[in-house]
Amino acid sequence: MANDAGSLTPRAEDFPRWYQEVVAGAEMADNGPVRGTMVIRPWGFGVWELLQGELDRRIKEAGAENAYFPLFIPESFLGLEKEHVEGFSPETWVVTHGGGKPLEEPVIVRPTSETVVNHFFAKWIQSHRDLPLLINQWSNVVRWEMRTRLFLRTSEFLWQEGHTAHATEAEATDYAVRILRDTYLDTIESVMRIPTFVGLKTDRERFAGAVRTWACEGMMGDGKALQLGTSHELGQNFARAFDIQYADEEGTRRYVYQTSWGASTRLIGGLIMVHGDDFGLRLPPALAPSQVVVMVVRADEHTGAAAAAIADELRRSGLRVRIDDQTATSFGRRAIDWERKGVPVRIEIGPRDLAEEKAVVVSRFDRSKRSVGLSALASEVRGTLEATSAALHREALDFRDEHSTPVANLAETLEACASGFAIVPWSEVGEAGEDALAEAGITVRCLQRADGSLPGVGEDALVAVVGKSY
Amino acid sequence: MANDAGSLTPRAEDFPRWYQEVVAGAEMADNGPVRGTMVIRPWGFGVWELLQGELDRRIKEAGAENAYFPLFIPESFLGLEKEHVEGFSPETWVVTHGGGKPLEEPVIVRPTSETVVNHFFAKWIQSHRDLPLLINQWSNVVRWEMRTRLFLRTSEFLWQEGHTAHATEAEATDYAVRILRDTYLDTIESVMRIPTFVGLKTDRERFAGAVRTWACEGMMGDGKALQLGTSHELGQNFARAFDIQYADEEGTRRYVYQTSWGASTRLIGGLIMVHGDDFGLRLPPALAPSQVVVMVVRADEHTGAAAAAIADELRRSGLRVRIDDQTATSFGRRAIDWERKGVPVRIEIGPRDLAEEKAVVVSRFDRSKRSVGLSALASEVRGTLEATSAALHREALDFRDEHSTPVANLAETLEACASGFAIVPWSEVGEAGEDALAEAGITVRCLQRADGSLPGVGEDALVAVVGKSY
Repeated sequence: MANDAGSLTPRAEDFPRWYQEVVAGAEMADNGPVRGTMVIRPWGFGVWELLQGELDRRIKEAGAENAYFPLFIPESFLGLEKEHVEGFSPETWVVTHGGGKPLEEPVIVRPTSETVVNHFFAKWIQSHRDLPLLINQWSNVVRWEMRTRLFLRTSEFLWQEGHTAHATEAEATDYAVRILRDTYLDTIESVMRIPTFVGLKTDRERFAGAVRTWACEGMMGDGKALQLGTSHELGQNFARAFDIQYADEEGTRRYVYQTSWGASTRLIGGLIMVHGDDFGLRLPPALAPSQVVVMVVRADEHTGAAAAAIADELRRSGLRVRIDDQTATSFGRRAIDWERKGVPVRIEIGPRDLAEEKAVVVSRFDRSKRSVGLSALASEVRGTLEATSAALHREALDFRDEHSTPVANLAETLEACASGFAIVPWSEVGEAGEDALAEAGITVRCLQRADGSLPGVGEDALVAVVGKSY
Repeated sequence: MANDAGSLTPRAEDFPRWYQEVVAGAEMADNGPVRGTMVIRPWGFGVWELLQGELDRRIKEAGAENAYFPLFIPESFLGLEKEHVEGFSPETWVVTHGGGKPLEEPVIVRPTSETVVNHFFAKWIQSHRDLPLLINQWSNVVRWEMRTRLFLRTSEFLWQEGHTAHATEAEATDYAVRILRDTYLDTIESVMRIPTFVGLKTDRERFAGAVRTWACEGMMGDGKALQLGTSHELGQNFARAFDIQYADEEGTRRYVYQTSWGASTRLIGGLIMVHGDDFGLRLPPALAPSQVVVMVVRADEHTGAAAAAIADELRRSGLRVRIDDQTATSFGRRAIDWERKGVPVRIEIGPRDLAEEKAVVVSRFDRSKRSVGLSALASEVRGTLEATSAALHREALDFRDEHSTPVANLAETLEACASGFAIVPWSEVGEAGEDALAEAGITVRCLQRADGSLPGVGEDALVAVVGKSY
């Protein structure tokens, strides 16, 4: 990996290596001592806290309430829903000892919480008046993974998982789609600034235990796909397995219809891979733990005071601002570090600038510098932040459009997926086509209408967004 | 346990049973399917989210940054600090299998994160410029427990754990005390409204691996103590075990001095046991997920609209307000439920009230009711909330004072601890006295100055706060 003072491996040369170097160089995360686990360092966790806040607000606006279910699940629970156990059994971590003795029944460390949540839904739901029941949980989950990569695929990750129960199938569908659109798509597009394809997963790709999976898919800087958030309709699969019934207005007992949905720290991996450049991370302002860093160029009483005054003014206008007055470290070294961390705006202030009542404003987006009068600084910074947010999305959208090719058949699909996505009529692929694509490491990311909108349930004439993926 | 419609077991009759009934009746938590685990239901989790927010803000004001360390810790890590391993080994849950195969080295599910955090501190700390390093983590931890009780002692609980490294012992002491006072004591007193004793733990009671433990101790409604938050000075114990050294300004390598500190979902148990009464929970307004519930007495178009208008007005003034218009359920049943959940203010509005442009305001603190003109409602509600916050603290303080007895020797200590705390000169107890107390199930909760303030390090002439405890 690049040494600290040196430059990063260029993205175009070796994308996976560049990714690793950015994660390390921006001090986002480290590998944990146990296979595939991850330490999220303060800078990475600061991004996660902001992202969590954005998602949590939207989840609550959708009427769900937060709760917390146990980390440990009896091994027998997993077996209660057939597809679910087949999907998750090979991935579990199992606790066999507690308090120095073997346990009577081994417990699994949750890979996801459908089973334990539904065990309680069966107790809590009696009447139609208990519906809809809309629950969300923020937690850690673990899965045994053979090949791990920080944020993208780790043995333990942080996420939210929503679990809901509804009286009718139509309500469950509406809610699953509402979460996909108003919570995930809105956060990913308007906060993370990642252009997003939305649609239905094929049967092959849907969640183990679901009847329908809705997904958000982004294109990374190497043309590969990353699944960014999924919302599942579980039908009555878990309701039957866990006996979750309600009495309707006539007193007839009926099984509920359910959804579950999740988004994880994987999103941070997507953020890095979409917006990062050869100089490191570029953070959208809404997710930058510090949106502005005010750098004191050389130690000097006046400069320090001026930096503090500038920081105060910007903070008063609601921005997250950090002062860097660590002048024992070289200016160049510090500038490179902030660049690597992706702080959207750097303000450089030295004695010469100050004598002219000016400061230098550097935009992380395009690394442009401009000398700005102190009185105009706040509005210049605000303008640069807004422009950054728009430009990051524009650039990512242009990249995705250039690397998404409408094609007519399976052969052309394979060709287009060498460098990005293929958009192909689903009728040209089908389940047999999916098998053929899988042999080349390619999957259908989602099915959508030709205009890119979400299909209705049971709708035909869809196009498939196809590509390699993480 | 009390049936849903019936009343709770009186506190005075059977305190533990009353506690269980309140936790269940207020829908705070349920027992999980695996031994000693807990489901925190939305009402309980709503309290936790508010408490977390208060603690988190103060932790950040103290300069610490949030991060996340892995759930799984190699078994060998625990053995690196001698006292620590002796304290925690018997309490661990151990994962022996992953991905369907036995692991090469078993991993423990974290009971606390000192070992894994310090493994990374050793990598991150090189120079005096890296100090102080101030890290906090919000997470779940697990401990094998023989006898569990929801919130108070559970196999898995949620908490924050802070970990810091400093250049000098004095800085570490200052920081440990700062966290105790500005984060824990301030939150517990001013937000939770629990009167708190603060002081040093005796050697017998300090954290496994610490040189000094500072603690906040509250008195519950049955006269027993609950430890509410602790802040530990670790000296150089972990620094030596994990080789955490920094180069000082002269380039000499030195071991850091450290602190760790934590507060958990146990605080919610304390909140219930201090403020609850025979009708259920009573929440301090700062921690009530809904501070006001506007109850529609009988279904009626005008009443519904009036309730919505009242709720809107209160929300605009910054309050958390819920409307209860579930008139299919009897009014009495609903009123009992909100009372059990401890919502500080209930507004009851029916057609007759409305005809007179009035509503009934009920204070949960003393269950007093008063009829108030609609135009005065907002100021009445604000006044009631302020009075509730003050009255809960006052009542708890009076109770604690009545049940804390200054005594002169060990015999009197034993007597006083039958109904509450004894305050006794530490010189009258000493380590031999502690052993004698332990046989009666009594412990020294903390050592403090005679005026109740925190002692300085090495200070003599302290008094011991002594009692039974959870």
